Amino acid sequence: MTYCVGLCLDEGLVFASDSRTNAGVDYVTTYSKMHLFNPSPDRLFVILSAGNLATTQEVINHIQRDIDYPTGAPNLTNVKYLFEAAEYVGKISQQVQQEHSQAFAKSGISGTTTLLIGGQISGQPHGLIMIYPQGNYISSSPQTPYLQIGESKYGKPALDRISHTGLSLHEGARLALVSLDATTRSNITVGPPFEVATYAKDSMQLSCRCSFDEADSYLINLREAWNSGINNVFQGLPDFESNQPQVILSSATTPAQAQAQADQMVKPQRQIT
Amino acid sequence: MTYCVGLCLDEGLVFASDSRTNAGVDYVTTYSKMHLFNPSPDRLFVILSAGNLATTQEVINHIQRDIDYPTGAPNLTNVKYLFEAAEYVGKISQQVQQEHSQAFAKSGISGTTTLLIGGQISGQPHGLIMIYPQGNYISSSPQTPYLQIGESKYGKPALDRISHTGLSLHEGARLALVSLDATTRSNITVGPPFEVATYAKDSMQLSCRCSFDEADSYLINLREAWNSGINNVFQGLPDFESNQPQVILSSATTPAQAQAQADQMVKPQRQIT
Repeated sequence: MTYCVGLCLDEGLVFASDSRTNAGVDYVTTYSKMHLFNPSPDRLFVILSAGNLATTQEVINHIQRDIDYPTGAPNLTNVKYLFEAAEYVGKISQQVQQEHSQAFAKSGISGTTTLLIGGQISGQPHGLIMIYPQGNYISSSPQTPYLQIGESKYGKPALDRISHTGLSLHEGARLALVSLDATTRSNITVGPPFEVATYAKDSMQLSCRCSFDEADSYLINLREAWNSGINNVFQGLPDFESNQPQVILSSATTPAQAQAQADQMVKPQRQIT
Repeated sequence: MTYCVGLCLDEGLVFASDSRTNAGVDYVTTYSKMHLFNPSPDRLFVILSAGNLATTQEVINHIQRDIDYPTGAPNLTNVKYLFEAAEYVGKISQQVQQEHSQAFAKSGISGTTTLLIGGQISGQPHGLIMIYPQGNYISSSPQTPYLQIGESKYGKPALDRISHTGLSLHEGARLALVSLDATTRSNITVGPPFEVATYAKDSMQLSCRCSFDEADSYLINLREAWNSGINNVFQGLPDFESNQPQVILSSATTPAQAQAQADQMVKPQRQIT
């Protein structure tokens, strides 16, 4: 599994990713999922990836080749807008998946990859875009300044409560680490080292790119402060006992006979093995 | 969708469920997912349900019929252990699903239901068990005192950080509401009214069963206190700026050429429509 998150703030961009990959629980490895492209001084792109590792690497390799050996076709050096970069990368992703589609179908392997691309081209605003496996894309918005790929649910509540475009880059980086830590805690296939990068708008270079391993003292302090802070907040919440509504239903439930195929849940609980 | 959670604490049991059901986003209704059975003074059971509503109702109806018209076969009145109650309910669930299996298969509808059963039989300890759609089951443990069914991911981080068997029933009820609120915030198909029930061990009756609707002042206060508390904790976390590790990687990524089909993610991101 993977968890990556990007934030598009007024001050610039924040990128964060875990580094754990796996092919089953007995083949766990570490790969960076953060890819930096700074092909000319007027532009910078960061790509985060979640999905089939071979597909992702092939996409990244082809992007780099198109920069090294330009053919006149779109590449990261000549696109004029960030959305053009997303369209270009989405097209490469589709081509790579198409190339192996028959083999994937035969073996039942998912060859898809979902990507986040963020960055800036001189004269344009900075931005953050998610590229679906189908090659199309959506960008973040002032109302929803974050985009996530991979195992996104555990880390979403903190983003929903805290993120807004007025966060500083350092606050955004801290929030991204909190969101990553929540995911790691609930899903062991997401794990450190965590990579974090920040980009101050109009600078055309990363302000920081750093990696936090499991034993990193800041990561440990952050985790402990967050955990004890949340427990303290919980202890301070209004008391349940003195606040129960007066609706006490103590009789047995007699369910109605409605036959609607109302689906309370999308998929059955996965069994613990 | 549905979200239900149960907690098995030293003091007793806590049950909580949302009440929103849907068949597509244009057919949203409210049903209780909490079913109480108190068939004789020496036993009490609460069943929470997540899954196909018709299957769930048929299971609950058959359980009640077996109590009303006993045949000598197992039912909730004559089982000796909580695990026997789980096996009995699991068998009924399987029978109901089997009954309609051809019709479900033809129409592509999932007829599964996942259940939580908790309670106590006199002379036995209180307990909490999850019954899979396949009819088998697992119980909670002192290390993992909670069980969830339905849309469980958003509400899991709070449970992971806060739950332990030493919580009081009121603390457990408060935690269950926090976990429900987190889920509601991130998935609009889970929603109030929230039902909460607590059971003090050896009492053979619920100490409370109450329903919190959207406008309930305690629910609103709890939500606001939790939200502002979390934001305050975040503001007080150790600063990112002065704690960055000295590993600055500013060169472009050159991915390795490994061909492993390492899967970073189980399924592609769902597209926002």
